[in-house]
Amino acid sequence: MNILLAGDLAAAEFDLWHRELARALPHDRVLRARHEASAESIEAAVVANPPAGSLQGLPSLRLIQSLWAGVDRLLADPSLPHGVPIARMVDPAMTEAMVQTALWATLALHRGFFAYAQRQREQVWRVHAQRRADELRVAVLGLGEMGRAVAARLAAQGYRVSSWRTRGARRAGAGAAPGVSLAEGAPAFLPLLAESDIVINLLPLTEATRGLLDARAFAAMPRHAGLVNLARGAHLVDADLLAALDSGHLRHAVLDVFTSEPLPHEHRFWSHPQVTVLPHAAALTDPRSAAGIVAANMQALREGRAPSFLVDRSRGY
Amino acid sequence: MNILLAGDLAAAEFDLWHRELARALPHDRVLRARHEASAESIEAAVVANPPAGSLQGLPSLRLIQSLWAGVDRLLADPSLPHGVPIARMVDPAMTEAMVQTALWATLALHRGFFAYAQRQREQVWRVHAQRRADELRVAVLGLGEMGRAVAARLAAQGYRVSSWRTRGARRAGAGAAPGVSLAEGAPAFLPLLAESDIVINLLPLTEATRGLLDARAFAAMPRHAGLVNLARGAHLVDADLLAALDSGHLRHAVLDVFTSEPLPHEHRFWSHPQVTVLPHAAALTDPRSAAGIVAANMQALREGRAPSFLVDRSRGY
Repeated sequence: MNILLAGDLAAAEFDLWHRELARALPHDRVLRARHEASAESIEAAVVANPPAGSLQGLPSLRLIQSLWAGVDRLLADPSLPHGVPIARMVDPAMTEAMVQTALWATLALHRGFFAYAQRQREQVWRVHAQRRADELRVAVLGLGEMGRAVAARLAAQGYRVSSWRTRGARRAGAGAAPGVSLAEGAPAFLPLLAESDIVINLLPLTEATRGLLDARAFAAMPRHAGLVNLARGAHLVDADLLAALDSGHLRHAVLDVFTSEPLPHEHRFWSHPQVTVLPHAAALTDPRSAAGIVAANMQALREGRAPSFLVDRSRGY
Repeated sequence: MNILLAGDLAAAEFDLWHRELARALPHDRVLRARHEASAESIEAAVVANPPAGSLQGLPSLRLIQSLWAGVDRLLADPSLPHGVPIARMVDPAMTEAMVQTALWATLALHRGFFAYAQRQREQVWRVHAQRRADELRVAVLGLGEMGRAVAARLAAQGYRVSSWRTRGARRAGAGAAPGVSLAEGAPAFLPLLAESDIVINLLPLTEATRGLLDARAFAAMPRHAGLVNLARGAHLVDADLLAALDSGHLRHAVLDVFTSEPLPHEHRFWSHPQVTVLPHAAALTDPRSAAGIVAANMQALREGRAPSFLVDRSRGY
């Protein structure tokens, strides 16, 4: 089977992916470019933010496999072939990386380690009060694989964890993790925020979730609450967050994702003392494990079985 | 029973401890100062870094209960009454706080979050490679309640964890946690460091462990390893650590404890980009839970049972 690798990746990263995919798919041919084979012979594409139009004119295409978990950018390409199934990347190694980032951010907000870093810069030696984990209420927005895993791990550390999802997100069998309460739908959103010391966003980006983290949401959160955005920059209204931090209402934000990436130099997030900026690094796809997951989906395709983690285009994830 | 509270505490903190102890010991009298009762009537002392000599001339003293876990400073007072048992504070809430700090520091070193904070200051958007937890080798020095708890929690997150203790530290039943390997004694120390990407110090301060973290130790550690000192400042040779960081051999150090506290303003640790300074805040004793633990030891004293967590003065902890 001819499989096209297409993506907006640095050369070294492209090479790494090509090597790992070729190793995981020894009986297939992984193409680095369309001209390496006839358009008619390409049956699958493995993509990472492919340039718009990359997948047009491939009449035999039967599967588009994303290397990233989020497919909002892929789906925004109007030239994406209709009717071809799209699979998201759900890699346990990537999920675990996201859990690590969420746990690190939660511990840092809970125990005030960002505040201690600021005091170090000012050479101030001062201890602040210490709360137990069971005195911290953490809301995890989004109940996909990552949201569920994050909520479960935080609950295991003793935090009081609630999950939230949009009503439309209900799927059979996908309840909250043990020890994690569940709220659903728009009417439950602000009341949940009102009872959360830390809010972690792991929602997919859809029309229902775009701009959800706005002035209204921040006003609902308790004074000195913290925000962790690990999903998409467009979930967040930047100016509203800056206003909530500047007024002293919110204490700190950890942001991994931004409306424009890399984050432009003039953006206030870079230098704001209450903002931690990460370069979209909360959870990288690990080519070593992800290549095996791609191979399993290609095998399913070959055998006529349904690939795993298919995207529902009408839902947007 | 008359119980003397003595310690070098801020007034508000002293008041808080007095209130919580009085609540936990309703049938005893908790004295705020020696002159509140006759010296002969004082049977126990609850202490937090008491000024030297505070416990002299108390002929009926039967127990000295520390509010802190570390008793090296207490034992260094030559006027400390001989023959009176000393109990350390072992509070599950304090142990959990230490686990949180160790886990936060480990995640930050593992995932490079200190490096990302530095890049934010420089407005550099650059992702670095991501390793899995099982690719990180963490050494936990010290196998007391805190060392054991930290090692167990890190192993539960998937890290490859080894414990180390001095040979003299062997006690019946105190093995390493499940999934944690155990090394013992001086000959095993440098070989263990040589195989550790992150070293977390939770040793008691004794003559055997003073200055253990020195140039020889850092030279044994792999290039770009990280150090987390949560025990005592005197375990560490500051100049040797600075040299190891400046040469690029070690990547980063998280330090909660210092030879002189508060850390003096002129000390290079404050401004070193590869050093995170915490104000001895890794694990505070929580008066709410600790008062109950003090009360249980006082009850044991009253009933003629041995108090818990007695210090072996010959060992120093």
